[in-house]
Amino acid sequence: MFKLNENYLKLPGSYLFSTIGKKVNAYSAAHPDKKIIRLGIGDVTQPLAPAIIEALHSAVDEMGHAETFHGYAPDLGYEFLRDAIAENDYRARGCDISPDEIFVSDGAKCDSSNIQEIFGLDNRIAVCDPVYPVYVDSNVMAGRTGTYDKNTETWSDVIYMPCTAANGFAPELPKETPDLIYLCFPNNPTGATVTKAQLQEWVDYANRVGAVIIYDAAYEAYISDADVPHSIYECQGAQTCAIELRSFSKNAGFTGVRLGFTVIPKELKCGDVMLHSLWARRHGTKYNGAPYIVQRAGEAVYSEAGKEQLKQQVAYYMKNASYIYNGLKEAGFTVSGGVNAPYIWLKTPGNMTSWEFFDTLLENVNVVGTPGSGFGPSGEGYFRLTAFGSYENTVEAVDRIKTLKL
Amino acid sequence: MFKLNENYLKLPGSYLFSTIGKKVNAYSAAHPDKKIIRLGIGDVTQPLAPAIIEALHSAVDEMGHAETFHGYAPDLGYEFLRDAIAENDYRARGCDISPDEIFVSDGAKCDSSNIQEIFGLDNRIAVCDPVYPVYVDSNVMAGRTGTYDKNTETWSDVIYMPCTAANGFAPELPKETPDLIYLCFPNNPTGATVTKAQLQEWVDYANRVGAVIIYDAAYEAYISDADVPHSIYECQGAQTCAIELRSFSKNAGFTGVRLGFTVIPKELKCGDVMLHSLWARRHGTKYNGAPYIVQRAGEAVYSEAGKEQLKQQVAYYMKNASYIYNGLKEAGFTVSGGVNAPYIWLKTPGNMTSWEFFDTLLENVNVVGTPGSGFGPSGEGYFRLTAFGSYENTVEAVDRIKTLKL
Repeated sequence: MFKLNENYLKLPGSYLFSTIGKKVNAYSAAHPDKKIIRLGIGDVTQPLAPAIIEALHSAVDEMGHAETFHGYAPDLGYEFLRDAIAENDYRARGCDISPDEIFVSDGAKCDSSNIQEIFGLDNRIAVCDPVYPVYVDSNVMAGRTGTYDKNTETWSDVIYMPCTAANGFAPELPKETPDLIYLCFPNNPTGATVTKAQLQEWVDYANRVGAVIIYDAAYEAYISDADVPHSIYECQGAQTCAIELRSFSKNAGFTGVRLGFTVIPKELKCGDVMLHSLWARRHGTKYNGAPYIVQRAGEAVYSEAGKEQLKQQVAYYMKNASYIYNGLKEAGFTVSGGVNAPYIWLKTPGNMTSWEFFDTLLENVNVVGTPGSGFGPSGEGYFRLTAFGSYENTVEAVDRIKTLKL
Repeated sequence: MFKLNENYLKLPGSYLFSTIGKKVNAYSAAHPDKKIIRLGIGDVTQPLAPAIIEALHSAVDEMGHAETFHGYAPDLGYEFLRDAIAENDYRARGCDISPDEIFVSDGAKCDSSNIQEIFGLDNRIAVCDPVYPVYVDSNVMAGRTGTYDKNTETWSDVIYMPCTAANGFAPELPKETPDLIYLCFPNNPTGATVTKAQLQEWVDYANRVGAVIIYDAAYEAYISDADVPHSIYECQGAQTCAIELRSFSKNAGFTGVRLGFTVIPKELKCGDVMLHSLWARRHGTKYNGAPYIVQRAGEAVYSEAGKEQLKQQVAYYMKNASYIYNGLKEAGFTVSGGVNAPYIWLKTPGNMTSWEFFDTLLENVNVVGTPGSGFGPSGEGYFRLTAFGSYENTVEAVDRIKTLKL
């Protein structure tokens, strides 16, 4: 008789954003007349930039003719895209990353959940608390997290690194030594960042204790401060301890297009074995490449026209971020984030829990956000709003929130 | 200090098609004047059908306007696509599969390698021998296959079900009882099929012993015989024991477009737990949907125009299959497959090993095929040719093979 992967049954609830989706759909079905504004899930709303649309059309045309048709993509991704990434995201910032250290994928969610697979089950993971739930959930599914404590909402074998108001939402080096350290900056959900000097401490620490940093830089396009690094490879020695995850979802609006990449430097080794080889084996065996047309769209992100158009798109969302940040601050909320990141992190008013505030917003002003507790126990009492709505909706949402009698 | 997933290190070589790719590239670099014909990797060569190109362009246009832009897709895939699949692939064949039992993905390779993850590590797998290498390799990576014996090229904990000339390349029920049974019909690589009555025996067996059948039907579009089932759900009782994997790669030429789906009936349970729930949790947590534009392309596969155009595309490839089958038979080769499948399975001449014949073909007549031993130990002494080339190349390849002095 077949047996289930019992680790799946340990997961305490649905995936966070599935739960939110169901709650919102239920409310919407019961109140079809209400106009709900969604600033919950980090989904973008602006259309793809013209340079990207043009690249997509052109690639679609290629697929319609035998001479220019493209079948299976190369395992690691097309060279034209990996060259553009290496040049623009790395060489231009002084990072020594070569195209063949870049693995093109269908997005950072898959990569961030699959990357744990090349490590043994006996590795101890450390995560920021709060953080994007996929890191912990994917390790739960693999059986790396021990037992779940309902009261503390923590896993026995996970090292939580609290990111709180007290430390400016930037984690301190953990007391217990981890093997794998998940870092995400600009942070989802808090919008907090670390400076290059702070990140250098993490790199030095990882090299010292023999840990691997899995660095999720999905939001790097939103960085405006000069001392905040866009890539972990801006730090000395990161090549021997860090994997970097990148996404096209937020810098280019690809949430529904699906494209991302992972960087594994060849210097990152366990004994003689390159992690690069293991991930290459996984890519070759369990993945079949991102669509040709999507990789061409990714290339257009780095064209002159694409860069200019996307700079404006990022600015559009950051105008929203500013509006939310300032509006809620004026209304008396305690807010952070929103400067180098498209997320605003606010303290729930009074003694409300995150989910109580979620329900209050949804029911009273029809605004959807994300409960901070969904990102980890230290997120309790906080709430995330995203800047990815339209400007009009963002303004209306903030104005509605201001009317709340709390 | 971090630890690797040691299971990866047990894998004896690269992924089969990566190895072939490297060999061919090396030969090509050394002999730039030679025109190599590739009938190795099962990659299609015909352009996307006009109905699909039209759907892609139209979806790209939608992505360029805020009102019709699509961000994150629903976890299981868009309803328009799941409805079309349920109607055309299942209801039209009398199979009771509902749209919410269908999980849209970026292809059958990912699904067939990821599906093992929802099962415990203590499940015993059974595979056809020879077969698509991803089933075994993904289980090796997960640590479910025991130790590798270099001499027999087998894993200690895998139940191999030989598919040989003696049994018409259709496996017999295994002597040891497996928990998970991978079946692939029409078979890759042999091109063999089973009748509905034969498949019914497998379904009855699985229900009797409490095993799950993972049924890979990626090549169902090539079936022409009336008594060969297109779906395992044509068999009574399959709903309680079978998962079906489907691909758009071969019926619609989507190898570079990336689309597939997995069916998990809600009746398929372990105790009270639906496997459907576990896979839904995996989809929600570790996957972010196929691109909107690609899902619209998938929908077009089921349009009247799409169906007609793709019927012609399949016929085009089957004309190639016929040419290879008949040509090699006339030349004295022992051949099978090629009738309900786009693969021709031939016995290597004399006592040549599969790789010896690979080298002979590549070096003497510049034709690339796939060594049968790459698909499992019983594939030794066999060789796979695909019908996915252009007709002109296929004819030339066969004519070149005929010139071989063997």
